Amino acid sequence: MLNFTLYNPTKLVFGESTIETIGEHLVKSGIRKVLIVYGKGSIMKNGVYDTVVESLENNNIDYIKLSGVKPNPVLSKVQEGIKLAKENEVDGVLAVGGGSVIDSSKAIAAGVCYEGNVWELFEGKGSVKKALSLFTILTLSATGSEMNSGGVVTNEDEGKKWSFGSPLLYPKVSILDPSVQRSLPSNQTANGAIDAISHVFEAYYGGTESTDMLDELSEGIIRTVITHTRELLKDSNNYKSRSELAFAATLALNGLNGVGRKGDWASHSIEHSLSVLNDIAHGSGLAIIMPAWMKYVYKEDVKKFAKFACHVFTINEGSDEEKALKGIEALRDFYKEIGAPITLKEVGVKREELDFIADNAAILAPLGTLKPLKRDDIYNILEIAYE
Amino acid sequence: MLNFTLYNPTKLVFGESTIETIGEHLVKSGIRKVLIVYGKGSIMKNGVYDTVVESLENNNIDYIKLSGVKPNPVLSKVQEGIKLAKENEVDGVLAVGGGSVIDSSKAIAAGVCYEGNVWELFEGKGSVKKALSLFTILTLSATGSEMNSGGVVTNEDEGKKWSFGSPLLYPKVSILDPSVQRSLPSNQTANGAIDAISHVFEAYYGGTESTDMLDELSEGIIRTVITHTRELLKDSNNYKSRSELAFAATLALNGLNGVGRKGDWASHSIEHSLSVLNDIAHGSGLAIIMPAWMKYVYKEDVKKFAKFACHVFTINEGSDEEKALKGIEALRDFYKEIGAPITLKEVGVKREELDFIADNAAILAPLGTLKPLKRDDIYNILEIAYE
Repeated sequence: MLNFTLYNPTKLVFGESTIETIGEHLVKSGIRKVLIVYGKGSIMKNGVYDTVVESLENNNIDYIKLSGVKPNPVLSKVQEGIKLAKENEVDGVLAVGGGSVIDSSKAIAAGVCYEGNVWELFEGKGSVKKALSLFTILTLSATGSEMNSGGVVTNEDEGKKWSFGSPLLYPKVSILDPSVQRSLPSNQTANGAIDAISHVFEAYYGGTESTDMLDELSEGIIRTVITHTRELLKDSNNYKSRSELAFAATLALNGLNGVGRKGDWASHSIEHSLSVLNDIAHGSGLAIIMPAWMKYVYKEDVKKFAKFACHVFTINEGSDEEKALKGIEALRDFYKEIGAPITLKEVGVKREELDFIADNAAILAPLGTLKPLKRDDIYNILEIAYE
Repeated sequence: MLNFTLYNPTKLVFGESTIETIGEHLVKSGIRKVLIVYGKGSIMKNGVYDTVVESLENNNIDYIKLSGVKPNPVLSKVQEGIKLAKENEVDGVLAVGGGSVIDSSKAIAAGVCYEGNVWELFEGKGSVKKALSLFTILTLSATGSEMNSGGVVTNEDEGKKWSFGSPLLYPKVSILDPSVQRSLPSNQTANGAIDAISHVFEAYYGGTESTDMLDELSEGIIRTVITHTRELLKDSNNYKSRSELAFAATLALNGLNGVGRKGDWASHSIEHSLSVLNDIAHGSGLAIIMPAWMKYVYKEDVKKFAKFACHVFTINEGSDEEKALKGIEALRDFYKEIGAPITLKEVGVKREELDFIADNAAILAPLGTLKPLKRDDIYNILEIAYE
């Protein structure tokens, strides 16, 4: 196990009928006026918006609103939010939505307190020294953003989907009521599950040193996600499975699963380049890219890929190499089973676009640690993913 | 899964050569003068004391010392620490040792800021409104106190070993360098492992609702503890296994494993009464009491006991009841294998003392949730544990 620091000050409030407590949490944190950030209006339909506003009003919290954050959230919306927050002198940001809403809110919370252009924080040209307090109400379990300090935003002018982060951006309080996810369509549930599994992989395969305790956690998260995603595709309304999937997705990227190992985020980087150029859902992109990456790199640590196959898919027969390959195939089969695309062709990417995607991803190359990927490696992985 | 709040602001700094950073962490937290609390001097022998003092001096942190905290720590020592801290106007407490040192330090940190007698905080007659900042350097993995907000102290005048806690008592920073545990004797390693396993059980068996994700974590912790305790009893110097056991023991009681389930702390309560009256090591007491408790209550949730047997000891044959009983037997065998006592008789308890222990534990009855234990139930468990 590598040396590490484990630190996460977010208070996660989990369970049914917890959203109505948001006003009290804001009062306890000394917040008087918030910017509510949300997406395209699903929170109007499922009653979450009304519950939030009622709680704010009952607790005399003033608020203004920024709506219209879209999946693969964009920088222009972040800048709109920063302007609005400054003009209205809010002292906190309340994200109500999924990962795109929370990530945008993190950029707004940091951007309000940053002198330059907020994109500089993504480019590494500036760092977060101060941020507004952030609070979240999660409506789609996937990214883990509700309990971590990072975010991903797309600069649409430059065609870059990049990440940033700071310990100042841990949400103060995150409310996670799994029951509001009952109305999610199957594809969103599946995409969330794929995102969570990918986050686990990115730590799991990113270190060849002894990490038994962490591997136990990783494998446990993946098994839980697989079991309860299957249940939810049978019955979207199953609260038990909504809770298990939600909690597992939070644990997949709240920092714990990431400590003590080097990590390897190559697949996420490639997917970002894919989705910035094609605007496909992040989970769908990962379902395509992750197994292709696995096929390309498994020889770097055959034993670990065999361990995964054995512990997650109970594949116990054959050599380590055979197990490793069967495990990757089983993962791909699972993604197919839950309705995810598993080739680039399926989502409308043309073969002649692969160069362009590879070039975009290669801006940040070398990617990953298990096998540091150069531009040609990225292209090869896209080829494997193509059909 | 029950509704829950997950919150833990402790910064855990884990790995080799981390102790020397303590001074910097204190400076960052604005601390100028600390009370160093430690035990009977093992930190003098293994070099930890010198490293700590050098780091404090390099960072211009003033300090005074309280030594002599013993296992099953006592109230009189806590009161000595409170007096010393007040007289010297320290602004922080630095615990350097195992659970008994950290627990005593928590009571000191709270007691300094409490008007009445600190024991009132254990009796529930008062609550912690303010506390000195607490920092820890862990030298024995067992209790999890380095990353939680509770503690246990014995009031030797009243013969009560009771617990207390407050969110204000999470350590600000806890440093855990597993390499300093290389010199521990086998029985201390084993006792720490048994304590950690018991903490997991206390959540695992305390809830019949769906808790798949948490059960995965629980079972993963126990498997890790079993594997690496065995390794350490072969080679005390194995850093890999020291790290795995240390991290697993922290995760066993840092709050995460305890959320979403009711919990059942009956065994711990009974053990406290046993060890306050007989001054045996907490881990040894748990090795005796826990399997006896399991035998007495398993019928309340046979499926869960069978699941444990299957997932931890790979016992797949027979009815659920048979699996459950075999699992309890396997646990007892493991405790025996690592040199722990498994009967009260072995540790010198006389049969005629069982009444006295049961009476002491029954002060807090009913104990636990799986089967709320009355005085006679406690006596019956002690009878099972006797020989």
